[in-house]
Amino acid sequence: MNISERVKHSEFLSPILEREKMTEAELLQGLAAGSIVIPWNPRHKNLKPVAIGKGATTKVSASIGMYSPEDTPEKEMEKLKAAVAAGTDSLMDLSVRGDMGAFRRQVVESAVVPVGSLPLYEALSYAHERRGSALRMEADDLFAVIERQAQDGVDFMAFHPGITLRMIDHIKASDRIDPMVSFGGSHLMGWMIHNQKENPLLEQYDRLLELCNKYDITLALADANRPGCIADSLDGPMVEELVLLGDLVKRAQKAGVQIMVKGPGHMPIHHVEATMTLEKSLCHDAPYFVFGPLLTDVAVGYDHINAAIGGALSSYYGADFLCYVTAAEHLGLPDQRQVHEGVVAARIGAHSGDIAKGVAKAAQWDLNMSIARKDLDWNKQMSLAIDPKRAREVRETRNPSGSKGCAMCGKYCAMKILSKFLSLDHVYQC
Amino acid sequence: MNISERVKHSEFLSPILEREKMTEAELLQGLAAGSIVIPWNPRHKNLKPVAIGKGATTKVSASIGMYSPEDTPEKEMEKLKAAVAAGTDSLMDLSVRGDMGAFRRQVVESAVVPVGSLPLYEALSYAHERRGSALRMEADDLFAVIERQAQDGVDFMAFHPGITLRMIDHIKASDRIDPMVSFGGSHLMGWMIHNQKENPLLEQYDRLLELCNKYDITLALADANRPGCIADSLDGPMVEELVLLGDLVKRAQKAGVQIMVKGPGHMPIHHVEATMTLEKSLCHDAPYFVFGPLLTDVAVGYDHINAAIGGALSSYYGADFLCYVTAAEHLGLPDQRQVHEGVVAARIGAHSGDIAKGVAKAAQWDLNMSIARKDLDWNKQMSLAIDPKRAREVRETRNPSGSKGCAMCGKYCAMKILSKFLSLDHVYQC
Repeated sequence: MNISERVKHSEFLSPILEREKMTEAELLQGLAAGSIVIPWNPRHKNLKPVAIGKGATTKVSASIGMYSPEDTPEKEMEKLKAAVAAGTDSLMDLSVRGDMGAFRRQVVESAVVPVGSLPLYEALSYAHERRGSALRMEADDLFAVIERQAQDGVDFMAFHPGITLRMIDHIKASDRIDPMVSFGGSHLMGWMIHNQKENPLLEQYDRLLELCNKYDITLALADANRPGCIADSLDGPMVEELVLLGDLVKRAQKAGVQIMVKGPGHMPIHHVEATMTLEKSLCHDAPYFVFGPLLTDVAVGYDHINAAIGGALSSYYGADFLCYVTAAEHLGLPDQRQVHEGVVAARIGAHSGDIAKGVAKAAQWDLNMSIARKDLDWNKQMSLAIDPKRAREVRETRNPSGSKGCAMCGKYCAMKILSKFLSLDHVYQC
Repeated sequence: MNISERVKHSEFLSPILEREKMTEAELLQGLAAGSIVIPWNPRHKNLKPVAIGKGATTKVSASIGMYSPEDTPEKEMEKLKAAVAAGTDSLMDLSVRGDMGAFRRQVVESAVVPVGSLPLYEALSYAHERRGSALRMEADDLFAVIERQAQDGVDFMAFHPGITLRMIDHIKASDRIDPMVSFGGSHLMGWMIHNQKENPLLEQYDRLLELCNKYDITLALADANRPGCIADSLDGPMVEELVLLGDLVKRAQKAGVQIMVKGPGHMPIHHVEATMTLEKSLCHDAPYFVFGPLLTDVAVGYDHINAAIGGALSSYYGADFLCYVTAAEHLGLPDQRQVHEGVVAARIGAHSGDIAKGVAKAAQWDLNMSIARKDLDWNKQMSLAIDPKRAREVRETRNPSGSKGCAMCGKYCAMKILSKFLSLDHVYQC
């Protein structure tokens, strides 16, 4: 049963339509056209499906996973909880070490949001263990991992099928500043060069589509050539790969496989509109899943803020799904607080874009807040805040008594007079 | 001696030209046209003048001042230091209580950046003390305060001369959600209604210009009608006032007074370009000093991030000067850390805009960072970070050993192979 049928025959349709302020026809039309995806592996038992794409609210994703020697499943599960509490719409498990399978199953089991993965990592690790070297990975290893992860209930998987040996030569000949920023992409390219073999994901793309169909996996085509700095944005290697990804999107859509495209990364403000437009045009309206993006390279230690800016603009110009970036980006792996703040920052960006692009009556939330503000209704303001707990904390520490601050004019307050004149419900007094 | 003459005959020209990557002719042309201002009261002894306006890098301003009963000069001076350490280009003292004069003199004495004020606050407070009520303030009180503050060395002053009794009626008749968000503006309006008098700053605008000329004060015309929420953006009351402010700008420019215009506040992303364009057009290219802006009303507790987004876009579309917003906005007054983060967030916005609008080779900074990143030169990366101290802290806590994280592929790392193939100076190994 394809996704359009499944979504109709379940209890999941109403919450999606309610959230997106969409009609059933609009949702089904988007699914049919491929401009909306609902990553939903039926083996992910407790999933609350989420619509990503044109006309839907912009969604955010948080990444967790065991990477450093210090990372433990326990610590990563705490981050998962922090991300969900902060309101993430999705999680990616990007583990590269430890018992990846056991951890992934734990993630899928506890996550009510869609879970994504990047199967290449496990395949390389598997080859390293079983064949003595990651470089000896075989295409079959990769497909075995995909099937295993699908059976574990992963909803969407990211791959780099768009990179070819010729493109790697092109990168070498180009004047890219920073050619190696996609971790998975770089590994795949290294493998291709070492083995002098073409990209197995491209060569066996139909096999990948078949597996996706078999297990209801949503594809996320990632850009191995994504620009890693402002200077490399919208350069030849990036756009060349995007052209090929567009062709692959078409094939997936024809095969009935749900598909998204992953994007940068780093770009200056004046490239955002062009980048979003280009993806939508080349990739047949497939939802765009962007990493940040970051609009400057120097905001180290504050890249969640940097990414919130990029996310807001991207969302406005058509991005559908924002991969969060944390304050630890470029420096290390985030702690729980940084995960939390990364998710909220991404949500601020997503929502700001949604207001401006007019989806799902996003501005109604803001209107309610503004009315609560005018009415000096603090309880309502706190509950309408994007992060009510944090809003309350800041209010408690920075305005402990809810104090009348100003002593400027004593009891003859001009604000009082003005608010009476304007017939406001609440008479202001500072 | 006017500002164009003063700037030429001082040791200050070279640092400004160096920072802005401008020629002397460009700077002087901007000053003559009024598209650039250099707030610079000669009584501010240790000032390092800063150029604000078209063709210059976007500047940021931090506000401090005694507002709550808990605020002390000592605590506010700590915030001042935090703001300067975080890289603010300017400070505004917005005190409404305590010994405002003594505190202001302390601020001017210790600040090497331009200092701004909002004299109405002190005038209301003065009337409250001397005449028993702020509502009994007389125009002469206000002008006496202006002169006193000018003598203390304040570089720029914000006023609300653009509000009239007719406009207040217009607000009342309009369907504004939140008409009272300008603190100074609301007080002035209340005073006007109570006394049934026109705006003294408008009626005696020539007297104001004379004082500005006498003391070399730069004006900042603030919008009493600034929108206080997304829903009120670009509405009638806002634009009506901006039209009048435009006329007042022209009079100031003709009188040889340096002048900026202050702006919102709150606006959705799709209003940013129009708002910036409108100000530049109506206000004869006077530098635009925006408050944030905030692109959503619900980011309570994270309004520094919200403002960074708005600042980036505004800067790109022409804003010249960003008033910071802290995480405590809408909740209380910021602590030292929030002041610090507010300044850095505003700088990230300003710089992202600068890259995209191409001023002062802003992108060169990012290029240097990207090269340091490719070279894995951590010292250089840390020193090029927008906040080197914070970048180092995050690196130390989140990547204590600078550890090789990944154990995915053992010693046969595909990234190593790729970096060799690409002939990178540094061989990557994850």
